[in-house]
Amino acid sequence: MSPHGDKSDAAEEALVAETEKRPISTILIVIAMQTEALPVVNKFNLTEDPDSVFPKGVPWVRYHGFYKDLHINLVWPGKDSSLGVDCVGTVSASLVTYAAIQALQPDLIINAGTAGGFKAKGAGIGDVYLACDVAYHDRRIPIPVFDLYGVGLRQACVSPNLQKELNLKVGKLSTGNSLDMSPQDEASIIANDATIKDMEGAAVAYVADLLKVPIIFVKAVTDVVDGEKPTAEEFLQNLSAVTAALEEKITQVIEFINGKCLSDL
Amino acid sequence: MSPHGDKSDAAEEALVAETEKRPISTILIVIAMQTEALPVVNKFNLTEDPDSVFPKGVPWVRYHGFYKDLHINLVWPGKDSSLGVDCVGTVSASLVTYAAIQALQPDLIINAGTAGGFKAKGAGIGDVYLACDVAYHDRRIPIPVFDLYGVGLRQACVSPNLQKELNLKVGKLSTGNSLDMSPQDEASIIANDATIKDMEGAAVAYVADLLKVPIIFVKAVTDVVDGEKPTAEEFLQNLSAVTAALEEKITQVIEFINGKCLSDL
Repeated sequence: MSPHGDKSDAAEEALVAETEKRPISTILIVIAMQTEALPVVNKFNLTEDPDSVFPKGVPWVRYHGFYKDLHINLVWPGKDSSLGVDCVGTVSASLVTYAAIQALQPDLIINAGTAGGFKAKGAGIGDVYLACDVAYHDRRIPIPVFDLYGVGLRQACVSPNLQKELNLKVGKLSTGNSLDMSPQDEASIIANDATIKDMEGAAVAYVADLLKVPIIFVKAVTDVVDGEKPTAEEFLQNLSAVTAALEEKITQVIEFINGKCLSDL
Repeated sequence: MSPHGDKSDAAEEALVAETEKRPISTILIVIAMQTEALPVVNKFNLTEDPDSVFPKGVPWVRYHGFYKDLHINLVWPGKDSSLGVDCVGTVSASLVTYAAIQALQPDLIINAGTAGGFKAKGAGIGDVYLACDVAYHDRRIPIPVFDLYGVGLRQACVSPNLQKELNLKVGKLSTGNSLDMSPQDEASIIANDATIKDMEGAAVAYVADLLKVPIIFVKAVTDVVDGEKPTAEEFLQNLSAVTAALEEKITQVIEFINGKCLSDL
């Protein structure tokens, strides 16, 4: 039995409706890599938090600042303390998203970053996508119902005006913890009908859904997964140039969001 | 440059040394499935928290109670709110572990649960293992150093006395988000030299390491991965009987821990 009766469901619906009609004030941008984050940090003159909102010892970094009517927070899981590389993947992304939501109570999450794209689905290097939904491709649990849990399909916040105004491509996003793609991953990505592939989206979406914060995904294509070149090589080669395209689109997204309500997106 | 100088390193070492010599008081048992958790909950008469230490809306459940000198907390990520199945896998496990550490400040974490075992490494149905270290087998990132981050090797708290006293088998644990095993998973599991395979261990270890809480892993074998039967079928068939063996060993572990310091384990 659900712990919520009809009364609290109705109250919750009323709250959601009210939230949708209030201008967006606090946004939380979740980005996995420093290279992806810094152009946005610089663009909006965001500053690193001297008194971290996160517990002592974690590598997570929050930058923040104000732009027009918005309080912009950008969080990045930081660098692994012993290895010095960005803490990519679903576990770090979910943890930093959870802790940031708890501390900052954002009105909207933007999960931004780079992704692999499938040319068979129309993606090319430098394309910036707005993901309409997101699912996992590396959680195979062949038991009824658990299989659906493993796929973990979540919807992005509906944003037809944002998409039209910014002329963004729209596609489904599939998430897994590997940069490469095994035949099993590929089969799941096809089943997910995905155009783009990343390493965090579905986990950020899971936490956003858990804590009832609307989320959009802005993902720029660094490598063509079904192309000629190996993913790691193409990813590293295009990372810097594509993050510039990503920063430009994030800037446009933020400009568009300013002064709007969730229902205007 | 590291944000911590020599002084705070020395202070931290002194704190660790002091902690190691203080009797263990608060323990946090992290278990992924209700079927695995309930025998332990019943054995120690743990009760569900009426005022959850977790945020409103999350499905995470904490049971707690006192036994001899110990405050026992058992957390379980709960059931997926729309699908009704246990929230297995690394993301849920890492989130509930993080939130529970923050709320409860445990002296020791016990990640307990079921696992697949490799008969080629000596594992059989019903065996209970103490994992000496844990790594991922489904995070392939073929870029130098990122590859090591992906493997995410973490050590368990050294516990030779516990192992000897309880006559537990010892082996390496490998974690991935799939119940089955792809050829790529298998190659990584072999590279990890793993005897047992689960879906949460490395993620719980990551959070424990991040927040500097010692951890041990108690894992009972429900299925032989390199055997004849399909994993899902064998897992479901043995789940109930093996959780009884698991509860028995966890009880022995708790009896052993009571009154002891970390350095006595």
